[in-house]
This record gives sequence, structure tokens and C-alpha cells, in this order.
Amino acid sequence: MKVKKYKREDEQTYALGMTITMEMLLTSPKVVERVYLKSDIIENNNTEKLKKLCVDNSIELIYSDKPFATLSQKDNCYVIGVVKKWKSELESGNHIVLVNPQDSGNLGNIIRSATALGFYDIAVIKPAVDVFDPKTIRASMGALVHIRCEYFESIESYVDRFKENNLYAFMLTSSEPLNEVEFKEPYSLVFGNEASGLDERFATFSKTVKIPQTDKVDSLNLTIATSIAMYEAKFARKSGK
Amino acid sequence: MKVKKYKREDEQTYALGMTITMEMLLTSPKVVERVYLKSDIIENNNTEKLKKLCVDNSIELIYSDKPFATLSQKDNCYVIGVVKKWKSELESGNHIVLVNPQDSGNLGNIIRSATALGFYDIAVIKPAVDVFDPKTIRASMGALVHIRCEYFESIESYVDRFKENNLYAFMLTSSEPLNEVEFKEPYSLVFGNEASGLDERFATFSKTVKIPQTDKVDSLNLTIATSIAMYEAKFARKSGK
Repeated sequence: MKVKKYKREDEQTYALGMTITMEMLLTSPKVVERVYLKSDIIENNNTEKLKKLCVDNSIELIYSDKPFATLSQKDNCYVIGVVKKWKSELESGNHIVLVNPQDSGNLGNIIRSATALGFYDIAVIKPAVDVFDPKTIRASMGALVHIRCEYFESIESYVDRFKENNLYAFMLTSSEPLNEVEFKEPYSLVFGNEASGLDERFATFSKTVKIPQTDKVDSLNLTIATSIAMYEAKFARKSGK
Repeated sequence: MKVKKYKREDEQTYALGMTITMEMLLTSPKVVERVYLKSDIIENNNTEKLKKLCVDNSIELIYSDKPFATLSQKDNCYVIGVVKKWKSELESGNHIVLVNPQDSGNLGNIIRSATALGFYDIAVIKPAVDVFDPKTIRASMGALVHIRCEYFESIESYVDRFKENNLYAFMLTSSEPLNEVEFKEPYSLVFGNEASGLDERFATFSKTVKIPQTDKVDSLNLTIATSIAMYEAKFARKSGK
């Protein structure tokens, strides 16, 4: 029952903060093992709701300040959920493929956007940051519970398993503007990482796509590029334009 | 010539870091008053380029560690540009209107996205964070120099000055999905802040728009919503679909 600094190999992770812990209790209570409350939390409607959710789901609720000292650098964190990690497998259909993402905040933000835009399957190609890192969970605002996220050793092993998927690799060197691409389902939207993007070999087994943009900045940031691509693939083509 | 912690009323602000300082020297050298280098900076091609740009533009280059102690909490900041603030007025045309933005990081990110997607005029309705805050400049990656950003006391004073603009207010309560809206130029894309969005009175003088999204998250984050909207308004309608 000890709380310790999160490590990737641990079987549990942490939801830091009331909003995220509530989100997990509401949508996926079975992954929440325990909830800690800081002793000086102000009791209000939200804490009442939280307590009821814990009782209803037979989840221990513990007042203790120790986990907060260990896990959270933020003074305004009064709730911590101890979350059992789960395994998930991609389902067939449209996917997001992130090649070597390096920033847990970005990964979390992408998960939040994907959930909002209706993409529930994310393949992550190793090496990559940890989807269960509390920083990722925090950036996803708890949306991680809605997503099937699976790690692959290489893009080849992903392609091998989802042979039916049409790959669209987002590359600044592409000559195909996003707003002219027809996405054929099932499709996979493939993105490189923050620092280096995708290397040219992706063009040998994928259609390439470029988000139209001025030359005044290096590139859109990864979360934004991914979100625009998801929006365009999902919605812009559906209105019969 | 003293460097002090940034305050909103100051006439100068700071570009923290090599990338951002370089961006400003390259695109708008006349706003850079001075450049500081940390004494233990590793001299390489980039520092050579930086020095040449300073010499070419008659900008003082000073090796001193003091400004870094005062201004930067990050150990990896080796360059600081002292930047003279400038005034800018919106030009007529398509605008982004941000109502009461509260987070300087978000404002900076939106500026970066706007520059990438070809929107150069941003109206900010007070109260709002400071576009010249070093945190905003940092989040914009220096793209602020490309943008005309002007503050307005109220949405009414903005509307009064740009009577010809068609307002599109992004609201979760709207029944008009973004992918079905025809944006009539000149248009203004209007966004509320991170916490509360736009209140209903905007519907009385604007067309309302909603980015289609699932109910699984509260909403897309502000930067992402703004970026998707800019993309759709600018590009998705231009392909003759």
C-alpha cells in the first residue's frame, strides 16, 4: 500500500488532482484502486461526489498527506487516485500512429484531442514516452481511459498487423496538401516526433500529406498538427462538400 | 541598461533562449536592443551566426550571467534578447478575436499557429494576459514578430471599428458544425477563454459555430480549437469541394 515515485515498470500509476481522478471514477472505476485526500482539502459538493463514487465502487478513501509530498509538486493538488495500469489492444478501424513521441505532455494532449474528435485507437512506435506516466495522464485530463493505446517495436510490426490500413504519413516534404487528400478507410494517420518528424523512408510505404502552412514558422506543434489532421480526416469530408 | 524581472508596464520585454532570440534577429532585428550571452555558453555555428547578426544590425552583445539569474529559471537558457515592445494596429481583413484569454502559454501557442496558418491579425479583448509577457513570446517561439496584435476594451469597441467583419463565435452550445459553415470574408473567428468560453450574448451579434466533438471530454483545448477553426476557414473551403 506504499506510494512511491512513479516508475515505468510499476504496475500502478497516479491520477493527480480532483478533475482527473473524478473522470476516472466516472468512466472507468474499476481501474481506480485507492483515492487519497489531503488533510486540508476543503469539503464541498465535489468531495461529496468523490466520496459517494468511492463508496459505490468499494474503493478505499484515505486521508493522508504523505502521497502528496511524494508525488505532487503542485500545492493545489488535493486528490490523488491510485490507478491500476491496464493492457489494451488496438481494434481494427482508423488509427493514429505516433512514431517515437518524446514528450509526455504532448502525448497526453493528443490523447485528449483524439477522444474529443472520436479517435480511440493510438499506436505508439518505440522508443517513446510512457502513456501511463502521471504527466501524460494529467495532460490527457483523464481521457486516457477512453483510448486503446498499444506500443509497437517498429513501424513494420504495426504495418504487418494492420495490413488493411491505408497509411497517411504527415511530412513537411510532402507535396499533397491535407485539404486535397481523400482518406480511404480504414486509415492510419502517422506522425513523427517533436524534434525530427518522419524520415523519408515512410514515403516508400505510405501516402504522404502536408498541412498547408506558411514558411514563417518551422512547423505547427505536434499536438496541433495531429488535431487538425484528425479533424480533417473525420469531419471535413463528411459534409458532402 | 539594467535587467529586471518583467512587468507589464515595462517598455521592454525578453526573448529567452537562442531559438527565439535568433528568430527575432532574423525577422525583426530593429526590435532587439541588446543580446546577453551566458559566460559558459558553448561557442558553435549558432553563436557565430548570432554574433554576426548582432554586428550587422549594430546590436550590443554582452557576456554576463546576471540577467540569467534574474530572468530565467531554466538552466538551459544561454541567450537572452532584450526586446523593445512595439505598437501594432490591426489591418482590415480576416481576424482572430480572443476574448479574455488568461493563459500566456495558450496565447503564445495560438500566435504560433496563427502565423503558421497565415492569420496575422489578432484582437485581444480585455481583461487578458499580456502578449509581451516573456512566457507568451517563448510559447510563440518568437512568432509574435509576425503578428499584429491589438487590445480592445470590449467586444463592442472591436465590432465598432470593424463593422464590415462577419463574426463567427465558437460556442459549444451552437448547433452549426464547423464543417458546414461558409465563412464570408472578411471574417472574425471569435473564441472565449480557457475557463468559461463565450457567454450567450455573443449569439446576438455573431453567427455561432461548434467544432464537432464527442461528449467524452469537456472540450478541446483552446489552442487546438482555434487552430482547427483557422485551418478550416482558410484551407478546407479553398479546394473547391
